[in-house]
Amino acid sequence: MDPGTKQKLMGVSTATLCTALFKRGLSRQFIQDVRPLNPAQPNMVGEAYTLRYMPAREDLNTIEVFKNREHPQRKAVEECPPGAVLVIDSRKDARAASAGGILVSRLMKRGVAGIVTDGGFRDSPEIARLAIPAYHQRPAAPTNLTVHQAIDINVPIGCGDAPVFPGDVIVGDGEGVVVIPAHLADEVADEAVEMTLFEDFVQEKVMEGRSILGLYPPTDEQSRSDFAAWRRGKGR
Amino acid sequence: MDPGTKQKLMGVSTATLCTALFKRGLSRQFIQDVRPLNPAQPNMVGEAYTLRYMPAREDLNTIEVFKNREHPQRKAVEECPPGAVLVIDSRKDARAASAGGILVSRLMKRGVAGIVTDGGFRDSPEIARLAIPAYHQRPAAPTNLTVHQAIDINVPIGCGDAPVFPGDVIVGDGEGVVVIPAHLADEVADEAVEMTLFEDFVQEKVMEGRSILGLYPPTDEQSRSDFAAWRRGKGR
Amino acid sequence: MDPGTKQKLMGVSTATLCTALFKRGLSRQFIQDVRPLNPAQPNMVGEAYTLRYMPAREDLNTIEVFKNREHPQRKAVEECPPGAVLVIDSRKDARAASAGGILVSRLMKRGVAGIVTDGGFRDSPEIARLAIPAYHQRPAAPTNLTVHQAIDINVPIGCGDAPVFPGDVIVGDGEGVVVIPAHLADEVADEAVEMTLFEDFVQEKVMEGRSILGLYPPTDEQSRSDFAAWRRGKGR
Amino acid sequence: MDPGTKQKLMGVSTATLCTALFKRGLSRQFIQDVRPLNPAQPNMVGEAYTLRYMPAREDLNTIEVFKNREHPQRKAVEECPPGAVLVIDSRKDARAASAGGILVSRLMKRGVAGIVTDGGFRDSPEIARLAIPAYHQRPAAPTNLTVHQAIDINVPIGCGDAPVFPGDVIVGDGEGVVVIPAHLADEVADEAVEMTLFEDFVQEKVMEGRSILGLYPPTDEQSRSDFAAWRRGKGR
Amino acid sequence: MDPGTKQKLMGVSTATLCTALFKRGLSRQFIQDVRPLNPAQPNMVGEAYTLRYMPAREDLNTIEVFKNREHPQRKAVEECPPGAVLVIDSRKDARAASAGGILVSRLMKRGVAGIVTDGGFRDSPEIARLAIPAYHQRPAAPTNLTVHQAIDINVPIGCGDAPVFPGDVIVGDGEGVVVIPAHLADEVADEAVEMTLFEDFVQEKVMEGRSILGLYPPTDEQSRSDFAAWRRGKGR
Amino acid sequence: MDPGTKQKLMGVSTATLCTALFKRGLSRQFIQDVRPLNPAQPNMVGEAYTLRYMPAREDLNTIEVFKNREHPQRKAVEECPPGAVLVIDSRKDARAASAGGILVSRLMKRGVAGIVTDGGFRDSPEIARLAIPAYHQRPAAPTNLTVHQAIDINVPIGCGDAPVFPGDVIVGDGEGVVVIPAHLADEVADEAVEMTLFEDFVQEKVMEGRSILGLYPPTDEQSRSDFAAWRRGKGR
Repeated sequence: MDPGTKQKLMGVSTATLCTALFKRGLSRQFIQDVRPLNPAQPNMVGEAYTLRYMPAREDLNTIEVFKNREHPQRKAVEECPPGAVLVIDSRKDARAASAGGILVSRLMKRGVAGIVTDGGFRDSPEIARLAIPAYHQRPAAPTNLTVHQAIDINVPIGCGDAPVFPGDVIVGDGEGVVVIPAHLADEVADEAVEMTLFEDFVQEKVMEGRSILGLYPPTDEQSRSDFAAWRRGKGR
Repeated sequence: MDPGTKQKLMGVSTATLCTALFKRGLSRQFIQDVRPLNPAQPNMVGEAYTLRYMPAREDLNTIEVFKNREHPQRKAVEECPPGAVLVIDSRKDARAASAGGILVSRLMKRGVAGIVTDGGFRDSPEIARLAIPAYHQRPAAPTNLTVHQAIDINVPIGCGDAPVFPGDVIVGDGEGVVVIPAHLADEVADEAVEMTLFEDFVQEKVMEGRSILGLYPPTDEQSRSDFAAWRRGKGR
Repeated sequence: MDPGTKQKLMGVSTATLCTALFKRGLSRQFIQDVRPLNPAQPNMVGEAYTLRYMPAREDLNTIEVFKNREHPQRKAVEECPPGAVLVIDSRKDARAASAGGILVSRLMKRGVAGIVTDGGFRDSPEIARLAIPAYHQRPAAPTNLTVHQAIDINVPIGCGDAPVFPGDVIVGDGEGVVVIPAHLADEVADEAVEMTLFEDFVQEKVMEGRSILGLYPPTDEQSRSDFAAWRRGKGR
Repeated sequence: MDPGTKQKLMGVSTATLCTALFKRGLSRQFIQDVRPLNPAQPNMVGEAYTLRYMPAREDLNTIEVFKNREHPQRKAVEECPPGAVLVIDSRKDARAASAGGILVSRLMKRGVAGIVTDGGFRDSPEIARLAIPAYHQRPAAPTNLTVHQAIDINVPIGCGDAPVFPGDVIVGDGEGVVVIPAHLADEVADEAVEMTLFEDFVQEKVMEGRSILGLYPPTDEQSRSDFAAWRRGKGR
Repeated sequence: MDPGTKQKLMGVSTATLCTALFKRGLSRQFIQDVRPLNPAQPNMVGEAYTLRYMPAREDLNTIEVFKNREHPQRKAVEECPPGAVLVIDSRKDARAASAGGILVSRLMKRGVAGIVTDGGFRDSPEIARLAIPAYHQRPAAPTNLTVHQAIDINVPIGCGDAPVFPGDVIVGDGEGVVVIPAHLADEVADEAVEMTLFEDFVQEKVMEGRSILGLYPPTDEQSRSDFAAWRRGKGR
Repeated sequence: MDPGTKQKLMGVSTATLCTALFKRGLSRQFIQDVRPLNPAQPNMVGEAYTLRYMPAREDLNTIEVFKNREHPQRKAVEECPPGAVLVIDSRKDARAASAGGILVSRLMKRGVAGIVTDGGFRDSPEIARLAIPAYHQRPAAPTNLTVHQAIDINVPIGCGDAPVFPGDVIVGDGEGVVVIPAHLADEVADEAVEMTLFEDFVQEKVMEGRSILGLYPPTDEQSRSDFAAWRRGKGR
């Protein structure tokens, strides 16, 4: 993405981004049924680095497997690039953990921008206190070995029914997480900034008591000229 | 409803109201699986004004449709009476938004008493900061157009598996939302006030260490006379 | 359990306990999909005392049944031993309450250590303010009579897909609730204390910037000797 | 039940019985989401003998447990009275078998009237060829030990969200299974026979082209007199 | 629809129709999770006439309500036009019946083309023997009154997550049911006939051993000329 | 697998195989919630060749993509080895087809042993008439493009919550499908043949009226010697 794109995406909402994507024919880019553990964090923005889980076969998922430095879960945590977002396909199964406090702490220290799973995290109260955005379905204390086997790193995956390709731009806010296809990130960021500006104007007018009819969307000429004036006044 | 009924309903809980309705043979009036975005608000009380969504057909739900001033979602927001509660039948589908921050702000400014959907809201962090009670299943950033088409205003609907008729009295608290059939609102409010009084007495006695046996319900004569005395003492 | 076991279990997490159980071949001991109403409480630790609900048949579940002092729900509340945890099998059905504020208050006053249901509580905002740990799936205002009939006390049950035998040791924290088979409680508590010590060390090292490879698990000799030194330094 | 009641129940449908129960205020007596493996069988009628499963704890559910002659699953199969129906509470979980072909064959040879589980059977193709009615949710090849532990015999249970007490009268047909409270069996059977007679008349008239208005229910005097004449003509 | 359109739709599959709709940007027109009770019937084709259920409130749904000739369920059965398909929105809830054998018989006698519900039918074994196509989720013996209240006739509805407008063309086959927007019925029927012709050719070639590459779709010139020759040979 | 293993697996049931795997600590090898379209077929036996779907992004899944000869779905159909079973990870989502009649016909002609998806097939009535075993969740007329994007061939996947590695031995019967890890196939086949022999003996004895106690499992010495004699008599 463009150098300025990340900054732009820090200031817009996932709701606005979803609408910008919808205008481009993409309606399934919101990761369904995940929520922030630490909603007061600034937006999470970064390129997707993915981890894929499959169902665990008992003989391949004993506690010993973590001694293997090549275990994909541990490898992903050490290799996810700084600034990226680790997105995990847990098949929407939150009966066991996708990751825990120590691994998320390591990601934070390595400069990773955030972590998302459509399953759950263990140590969720600790993760909620870390300064790295984290999103999951619900807490899951059991080790991943009971349900999940980490099998692939940085392949295309599904997460919460959304398609995620490595390099897609992931944005999270207090509401949830959206996946922006890599080639659209710059233009969608630009449009979302514009939309946000207009929505700020609309919100201000609504709070002053104006009707939404003709204003949102601005089908009345008056709304459009008021917005132009407001914008000039704000210098935005 | 009677002039005093709203005031009474501001001071009782949805749990108490559900029991009062159960005594009258009504056991499905609690809207299942919705929660308050802003639980610290006072109770939400108002008559139901409804909006019905159906599944969205793609050709009828482009971004252009909002330019139509008669679009039922926008119309409902402008026409829902002050003091009423807007109740939305989203077929329990939270994959897309039932409404967003600007529309809920407009409802608030228009004096609407609250909003409930069995789907989700977009801009949920913003809505959580507004001074209007709002209840949903979970946040949903995508525009309603991706999943929902607003089709009917003020018809009987289902919301969270509860039947809702226009004019029914809707009450929400920190726990959830209950639907009181219009013709029962006054008597149920009266009974709930009485029940609340008794439950306050019971809670006080329990905190003093008394057993619930014979007290809750008051099968012991002692409990009944203690309550009468307590009540006189409190002047309630 | 040993006198010291409860104290040990107050200081470890459900996540650590799940791993200790997994090492012993037990992978289904976490109660799925329940959450604390009052997450700031200290850990909940106590032996399981159980209540089993079955689906309610209408003629057997009128409001009158609570006048019966032998009603199993009320009886369980009065007979659950101080220090025990009341665990309720609500068949994962949260459409009606498993219990409410007055009953939970009574449990608290009686010295019961906590309450868990895989259904929901009514009066959940009040319960959230009590000084007794309580876990449920989601709030449920309707009286239990609409969906549940209390039928058995202190028999083996399922709760959130976990097997619970009377006397099993129940531990809850901010993440959820785990069931430790009675005969394993002492040894699992001991092991969890050791594991927690090591995880504290690892977390500290990770926050200092160390890689997890070779450290977690400590396959490097260096990690093991560092831990030994750290432990001596801490006097733990 | 009365000697003639079983015979009457062999000739009526679960749909008719559900309506007769609904008229008595009972609306949850149909076992949800089970289907006959062998739908061409005559009705299944018998008194409920129950088996309750709880979630399996791994250490208590090794293959060795079946060597115990007191294992509740095996015991239930040998002790369920001839003429009774074995009803199993599998917590609606069909991931593992509630029973298999050999046990169902044994029940058949012992004269048991049928078997119902809200989970699944293994060896379902073989069971489908046996001359004993069997109802389940879907086939489930894994042994019950992987998910279920048999824990109680002949206690009140839930099955497919319906309440089942030992001795209740169970009736199954090509549609599903209904639970008639023991004390109502005789009167409900009588009423269902009458209803069936009337519905046979209505069906005949409808097939002759008559409107259902005024006929079903028979609000027109003409319908009632036609039925009386039809009945006399049939000698029923 | 055009006079010939119905005939064309009798000879094509729902799968082919779904693809034709997908090419026009419509991807949600298949009614999810319904199946034919009588799969050997010819295709069901007719214009949608709809019935909407809402959750039943107990006081409004006693057995007496059917005495009202204006009850929407009974009215719909008598007023659904011959040749139309009655499509019922049961909110995907199959716990109670959407209709039963007598009503479906009446529809058949009235010349109605078929019936679809996203809930269930009672008397399903009888309906399976009638000469009218019927589709549901699963059998449901309880009367609709226990869960559903018929509330609206011939309004836009959802059925199995598909949008259905009165007058849309409904097609059912052994696989399921698809909803064709009224204005597209003629062109989609024409295209589906053409597609079916080509698929018949492809199927024949595949059964002769040809690879699908270059054939399906016909990216090879050879495939296209073979098809042209085959078509001439068949005179289709 | 050994040359004789396939033959052995043709004669045993998935239920027996699940038990043999359970004895080896593997309890999740049954593919959940799939059923045969053509249950009268002989057993399906072959090594797994896999196809992985991810959620479809609209711009990457237009009807044009099938013109690409490298499209993974089409490629898998042409490259799945004769004798293998094509196992598809459709994320348990049956809203759109995993494959249709023409592709399954091509697999059959190519000598593939069977096909399994945890989603659905389109053209299911046609597939049900083909002489190749096919298993799915339920029919799904919409093209895969509406929900699924084929992304990987022959990687480890999940199917119906079971782990599937390429080369694992897949066995299907009238009940469902089980996944045998490749390295266990020979020994599990041997054991299953022995178990089947014993179960045939038990079934015969049960049909003669013998109790299962002491017989199944054969804890009585008499049962073991009877079996030995029976076996000699049968020459098996």
